[in-house]
Amino acid sequence: MEQKIIDLTQGKALLKALNDLRKGLKLRSSIEDVHMCLEEEVIKRVGLETGGNLHIAKSRNDQVSTAIRMKLREDLLRLMAAIMNVQKSMINLAEKHVKTVIPGYTHLQPAQPITFAHYILSHLDALERNVDRIEDAYDRVNICPMGACALATTSFPINRDRVAELLGFNEVLENSIDAVSSRDFILETLAVLAIVSVDVSRLVEDLIIWNSTDFGIIELPDAFSGTSSIMPQKKNPEVLEVIRARMSRNLGNFITSTAAVKALPSGYNLDFQEITPILWESIENTCICLNMLSKVIINLKVNENLADKMLSNFSTSTELANILTRKYGVPFRTAHKIIGFMIKRMIENKLTFHDITPGMLHEIAKESSGLSLHVSLEDLHACINPMKFVEAHNVKGGPSPAETERMIKIRIKKLDLTRNRLSEKKRNLTKARKKLNSTSKLYLLGRMRP
Amino acid sequence: MEQKIIDLTQGKALLKALNDLRKGLKLRSSIEDVHMCLEEEVIKRVGLETGGNLHIAKSRNDQVSTAIRMKLREDLLRLMAAIMNVQKSMINLAEKHVKTVIPGYTHLQPAQPITFAHYILSHLDALERNVDRIEDAYDRVNICPMGACALATTSFPINRDRVAELLGFNEVLENSIDAVSSRDFILETLAVLAIVSVDVSRLVEDLIIWNSTDFGIIELPDAFSGTSSIMPQKKNPEVLEVIRARMSRNLGNFITSTAAVKALPSGYNLDFQEITPILWESIENTCICLNMLSKVIINLKVNENLADKMLSNFSTSTELANILTRKYGVPFRTAHKIIGFMIKRMIENKLTFHDITPGMLHEIAKESSGLSLHVSLEDLHACINPMKFVEAHNVKGGPSPAETERMIKIRIKKLDLTRNRLSEKKRNLTKARKKLNSTSKLYLLGRMRP
Amino acid sequence: MEQKIIDLTQGKALLKALNDLRKGLKLRSSIEDVHMCLEEEVIKRVGLETGGNLHIAKSRNDQVSTAIRMKLREDLLRLMAAIMNVQKSMINLAEKHVKTVIPGYTHLQPAQPITFAHYILSHLDALERNVDRIEDAYDRVNICPMGACALATTSFPINRDRVAELLGFNEVLENSIDAVSSRDFILETLAVLAIVSVDVSRLVEDLIIWNSTDFGIIELPDAFSGTSSIMPQKKNPEVLEVIRARMSRNLGNFITSTAAVKALPSGYNLDFQEITPILWESIENTCICLNMLSKVIINLKVNENLADKMLSNFSTSTELANILTRKYGVPFRTAHKIIGFMIKRMIENKLTFHDITPGMLHEIAKESSGLSLHVSLEDLHACINPMKFVEAHNVKGGPSPAETERMIKIRIKKLDLTRNRLSEKKRNLTKARKKLNSTSKLYLLGRMRP
Amino acid sequence: MEQKIIDLTQGKALLKALNDLRKGLKLRSSIEDVHMCLEEEVIKRVGLETGGNLHIAKSRNDQVSTAIRMKLREDLLRLMAAIMNVQKSMINLAEKHVKTVIPGYTHLQPAQPITFAHYILSHLDALERNVDRIEDAYDRVNICPMGACALATTSFPINRDRVAELLGFNEVLENSIDAVSSRDFILETLAVLAIVSVDVSRLVEDLIIWNSTDFGIIELPDAFSGTSSIMPQKKNPEVLEVIRARMSRNLGNFITSTAAVKALPSGYNLDFQEITPILWESIENTCICLNMLSKVIINLKVNENLADKMLSNFSTSTELANILTRKYGVPFRTAHKIIGFMIKRMIENKLTFHDITPGMLHEIAKESSGLSLHVSLEDLHACINPMKFVEAHNVKGGPSPAETERMIKIRIKKLDLTRNRLSEKKRNLTKARKKLNSTSKLYLLGRMRP
Repeated sequence: MEQKIIDLTQGKALLKALNDLRKGLKLRSSIEDVHMCLEEEVIKRVGLETGGNLHIAKSRNDQVSTAIRMKLREDLLRLMAAIMNVQKSMINLAEKHVKTVIPGYTHLQPAQPITFAHYILSHLDALERNVDRIEDAYDRVNICPMGACALATTSFPINRDRVAELLGFNEVLENSIDAVSSRDFILETLAVLAIVSVDVSRLVEDLIIWNSTDFGIIELPDAFSGTSSIMPQKKNPEVLEVIRARMSRNLGNFITSTAAVKALPSGYNLDFQEITPILWESIENTCICLNMLSKVIINLKVNENLADKMLSNFSTSTELANILTRKYGVPFRTAHKIIGFMIKRMIENKLTFHDITPGMLHEIAKESSGLSLHVSLEDLHACINPMKFVEAHNVKGGPSPAETERMIKIRIKKLDLTRNRLSEKKRNLTKARKKLNSTSKLYLLGRMRP
Repeated sequence: MEQKIIDLTQGKALLKALNDLRKGLKLRSSIEDVHMCLEEEVIKRVGLETGGNLHIAKSRNDQVSTAIRMKLREDLLRLMAAIMNVQKSMINLAEKHVKTVIPGYTHLQPAQPITFAHYILSHLDALERNVDRIEDAYDRVNICPMGACALATTSFPINRDRVAELLGFNEVLENSIDAVSSRDFILETLAVLAIVSVDVSRLVEDLIIWNSTDFGIIELPDAFSGTSSIMPQKKNPEVLEVIRARMSRNLGNFITSTAAVKALPSGYNLDFQEITPILWESIENTCICLNMLSKVIINLKVNENLADKMLSNFSTSTELANILTRKYGVPFRTAHKIIGFMIKRMIENKLTFHDITPGMLHEIAKESSGLSLHVSLEDLHACINPMKFVEAHNVKGGPSPAETERMIKIRIKKLDLTRNRLSEKKRNLTKARKKLNSTSKLYLLGRMRP
Repeated sequence: MEQKIIDLTQGKALLKALNDLRKGLKLRSSIEDVHMCLEEEVIKRVGLETGGNLHIAKSRNDQVSTAIRMKLREDLLRLMAAIMNVQKSMINLAEKHVKTVIPGYTHLQPAQPITFAHYILSHLDALERNVDRIEDAYDRVNICPMGACALATTSFPINRDRVAELLGFNEVLENSIDAVSSRDFILETLAVLAIVSVDVSRLVEDLIIWNSTDFGIIELPDAFSGTSSIMPQKKNPEVLEVIRARMSRNLGNFITSTAAVKALPSGYNLDFQEITPILWESIENTCICLNMLSKVIINLKVNENLADKMLSNFSTSTELANILTRKYGVPFRTAHKIIGFMIKRMIENKLTFHDITPGMLHEIAKESSGLSLHVSLEDLHACINPMKFVEAHNVKGGPSPAETERMIKIRIKKLDLTRNRLSEKKRNLTKARKKLNSTSKLYLLGRMRP
Repeated sequence: MEQKIIDLTQGKALLKALNDLRKGLKLRSSIEDVHMCLEEEVIKRVGLETGGNLHIAKSRNDQVSTAIRMKLREDLLRLMAAIMNVQKSMINLAEKHVKTVIPGYTHLQPAQPITFAHYILSHLDALERNVDRIEDAYDRVNICPMGACALATTSFPINRDRVAELLGFNEVLENSIDAVSSRDFILETLAVLAIVSVDVSRLVEDLIIWNSTDFGIIELPDAFSGTSSIMPQKKNPEVLEVIRARMSRNLGNFITSTAAVKALPSGYNLDFQEITPILWESIENTCICLNMLSKVIINLKVNENLADKMLSNFSTSTELANILTRKYGVPFRTAHKIIGFMIKRMIENKLTFHDITPGMLHEIAKESSGLSLHVSLEDLHACINPMKFVEAHNVKGGPSPAETERMIKIRIKKLDLTRNRLSEKKRNLTKARKKLNSTSKLYLLGRMRP
């Protein structure tokens, strides 16, 4: 109408009919698809002369790609919100556990003390990068294929920019063949979901292992674990196991989709139709799992009495070596050797850090490196104390309570900024929807003319 | 040294030893790994007292992640260049074929005429989005884990920002657990490569099909096809087949890596070590294939005599319907029905668009819709002429030569801009490397002091 | 009861209650799962004293693995039948086209004449190997985990062999940990489905390409192709495209399942629960696609006028070389060179095999190899004739009508034998079910005693 | 020669030339491939007249498929041997630990006592099914495509059965199109390797977790674990981590290959060439990992002092319920409730099974179910004793030492039978090779005539 392709009277009649159909369009299986059904219904209401023009300069090929993108952009925002919800739970939990010292593991072996806050923030940061990826993907999703028609645009003088604007897109997806035959925006979304899956799986794996009787670092809330009727000591991490398993779906769905699209010739192929439900399934699956995860996290109990365990497993040993270098002038490599030697001896004698004395250290240093070392009892105790260990690790990104509190504050601010960007994206979509409606209304009321 | 962790004399001795080792460090299999080998060599040169301090505030866990990122960022730039090289070949080819009309296919059935330039630009645009993805990934790769040490940072007062700056990183990867235990930057790279693979495979699939005797749309250069000694009529698309097959590797490698990382607990696990070669293999494989592809494209011969084929396969039929609506006032849907009816009749009578007459159209319109249609011979010929069809499809993103030339110009400019960004990234890395070297030199010469 | 674990009265009461519940058990969401719901219902009917013993020597861990296997064995038979149905359609089609000569392709280039029967039988044989794989898998599925209980069997003196026999299993899955924690039988089924998918995809890919206007080798029945309302010349292979795309699902589902199970510790984990629906989906998806495929095949029209095309694309050239060797004593490699040289010359002069003469061959042989060759016109015509080519390729497995008819006969017999094995498997399951019912009945009627 | 296609003199000359070339054929990059290189070398030795006939009735298409199958059948036997080697180590380990009681886990929570022998045998049995799968695959690999030539056999009167026999194949791969264009035998092999990977990964996952300080069930031999120089208490399970990561490669390689083959048209495509190295890599990778695993297993130390741990984690609780039912007439469900109730109470009061008394049980039974229960102290102690628990679980497949010893014996016999089948397959291949050589020799010596 604005482009003088159909005249004002016809245009208004079509607008009115479409507006009326918003109240509900009944799909009939005898008609090929929703597009044909809609046209038929419009023709029924305004006659063939007018309704028969509904499909000018359109094709199902560009319409379906446009429709998927319009739903997907909303879904990406929903996904962002679901991740941010998990991050919020993590911050809440972190705030409680800035001083809760737990063993940090490498190779599933106790390595050095950290705090639970420090730990959970590491996963928050990993998720943050996934939020970034979703935002990057959003810009490649929210572009408009309309006007590409079957694949070669049209000989009618349409205005593709105007259509894109009214539908809330950031820009036009220019090349018309590209517009109808590309599905990389779906693959990119599924790839991001696959990476989210890997990150979530690793967190969940930690929680399952740490919830075991043998590790005993956390305790799952009863509502999220199954107990056997006869074995109430068991806290089967059922919700976490379900999340872990479902995360695999995203890997499989990425393969289903890439394998399907990979060898397709250019142009529209009906194979595309089979990919779309995979996309929705993956998003739904991920959102549900993220929501469950958020609830698990917020209800997690962390064992606050692990100091003893850490003394028994020597996990503060590196700090003992550090102080030899820092305060007693022993070269770093030599310090390491002395402490290594000492721990080996202690294990052989079934001792732990509870039993350490300056004399023992002196003797070992002499024996292993010929050094005469007189470490004060105070230094010794400070080094092997897990909380002091953590406090001493105070550089950027480290586990010390001060540094962790600083990081929490920054992450709260970052989360606010991300929330603002999310809101703005939502607002833009709402604004476009409103503009489309009001434009249509103004034409119908005769208050606006092309 | 700058942080007063080791004194100036020791620091200079270590710098000198490391500088000397640049000329070549011999790896020995008796020593566990490159880190230990390096330390041992330094100790040999400067003594244990000094050399034993080389490893202060470092761990193999943060070093290996840093090293992978330093190589990967260069590789991402190499990958960008390889894609842009293909795009450049595409532009060269497109410039030659702005007016070369070929059938556009959907469902592998001839649908509407397009031009070869229009076609090849659609793939250029798909690749452009992959360049964007690589640049997005670059920012998540080029962040610095150094200082995270084993997983809990260190009690030595290091300056992580200064290390990141001297190593050319954009910023510090803050949380120290995240820094050593995340490999999402590898998975993201492999995901982008998987999407590149899908896009390249589809282009290659088109070219293989179009190179067949039956389609005859393009002809592969002899150097890129295998001919049987007895069947010189065969042009086996061997290079393209190899590219197509190798593209599958990126899908598999994505799975290898996600499956390996997916269920790992946090912290460093040796499993990571096995992922790295997969990453290098995927990048190498992709760069090689892109380079082959670029050479194939630039040498492609396109059949310029396909107009007849397009008249025989009725691929201009939509334009015939369009003119009925645009010029003769027939509702769009009715116009479609008349033309559809006519083509069916022509197929039954073994006629093609070569045989069409105004009288035939008049008769069919009458019979099928009761309309009396007097389309001029001139209009009729204009509609069924593939070149005229293409010229009439002149909206944004369409195949008309004018629009295609406009698009080519813009893409040349865009490519220049991307090249500039790529150069700037390279410059930044070079600048950082120079600064590191000059800083080291100034310290060694005593012209700079902490 | 038979093992004297519960007494006769209780045993009969339990049997009666379970029999009654066959008429329908209402699941309630307030109860954890079907097992608990069943027990509660039985207790309601026979009291806690008796009903409370229903679960002696059972666990959900062994029950669920048993139940999956009991459904899966039926599904495997259904899958076998679906493949055999496709094979039957192929035989029907083959019987019609023993003499329908079509070009055989390699590298998507016309290579040598074959017949459509010969072609479709190649896919029948590939499917046959999949039937074999299903039968192999069946034996690893149909083994009985019951009695493994949670993971350590039970201290009640149960008879696992008797349970296996009554449930129709071939044998007991012995080691009790293995019995409850292995899911390789699911992965094997999904792997076979993935291979079926690859085989079906390749057939479908051929049909889509051969149905294109450009190849024109087959024509899809209208009911299985979509035609555009305006472009009735188009025969969009929609059903085949849908099958092709859905086949990718099996690849993805294999990855979903292997990635989920891969890193699980031994023993039952709830992750298993999420794999089972993937299995059912893959089987359902495959059966539906196979049924569609069977219908497409039986309705396929094959172009019987392709002889001309084959003369134009020189696809009989190898036979021309063969006769030079066989009848005129030219070494094989030399014969190849002469013919290759000749075809090259003919292409340059825009000639085809329609134009070949003995003189031309004589001249070329002289020029290229210095030989004086006098091939008779009769020999020449026999060689370039596609039907004669096919007849001459009469060794085992070749395309000659005689050999193809022999192969069809054997495949019909083989299919009968497979059908017999399938029936026998079904009969065994039915027999076991009957025995279970009659045993239960005899106990209830007091006609049998432990 | 036997088929009178080439005469005796030529045939003998060719045989002689080929025999001579066994000593070494130099590949030259100027010649397309090994086939052409071989022919050229033969022509150089015996002249064009004779050597030019070397390629009669052959094509690279059937030759390459034959060659892959000939190498793959040897590799499958190597793979069988590697698995059986692991099984042998398992039996050795099992024999030592028939009475070593360890906690059995479900959901990574201690569930019931088992023995280490019982545990390791569960993995032996899983591997056994993989040996079966390899043997099933072997029969689909060891069939002969020779004679299929390019895709349509040949017009020369070859004898395909004789060729298959001399090359050691079980039968001819009949349909010639199927023979050159199928690669399902590669996919099947990769699928089996993927399942092996999943099974091995799960075993390795158990061992890594059980080797952790927190679980402490096994201890890895020093030669297979990495210790930090400063943290000698760490036993990083490095070899197991490497095996776990490499097992993922088989999943990825399955996807690489299926994705590549999936959408290929029938007939030979060069894409096939890219799949073959993936196959060899997967086999090599798997064999290496299996060999490492075998060595780890044979050197594993199992903690034999876990009884205390099992009393603390209540893992014998089910047996306590069982005895209430079996000896004291309490319905099974009620018995479960009483024990569940009691354990809950004990946990609240920080008690373990060390503290249990008949009085406590009596009190709880009264309170929770109104029953008056007088369990003897002897029964009580027998039930909670892990070794007695294990001895009482004596049904088929259970953990009792008697049953486990029975199972070990059977598995030793089974392994012998499998070894015999493996040897026979090897013998058949050797026999065929010898026959081929002797036949060739007899012809050369003139002692045999066609």
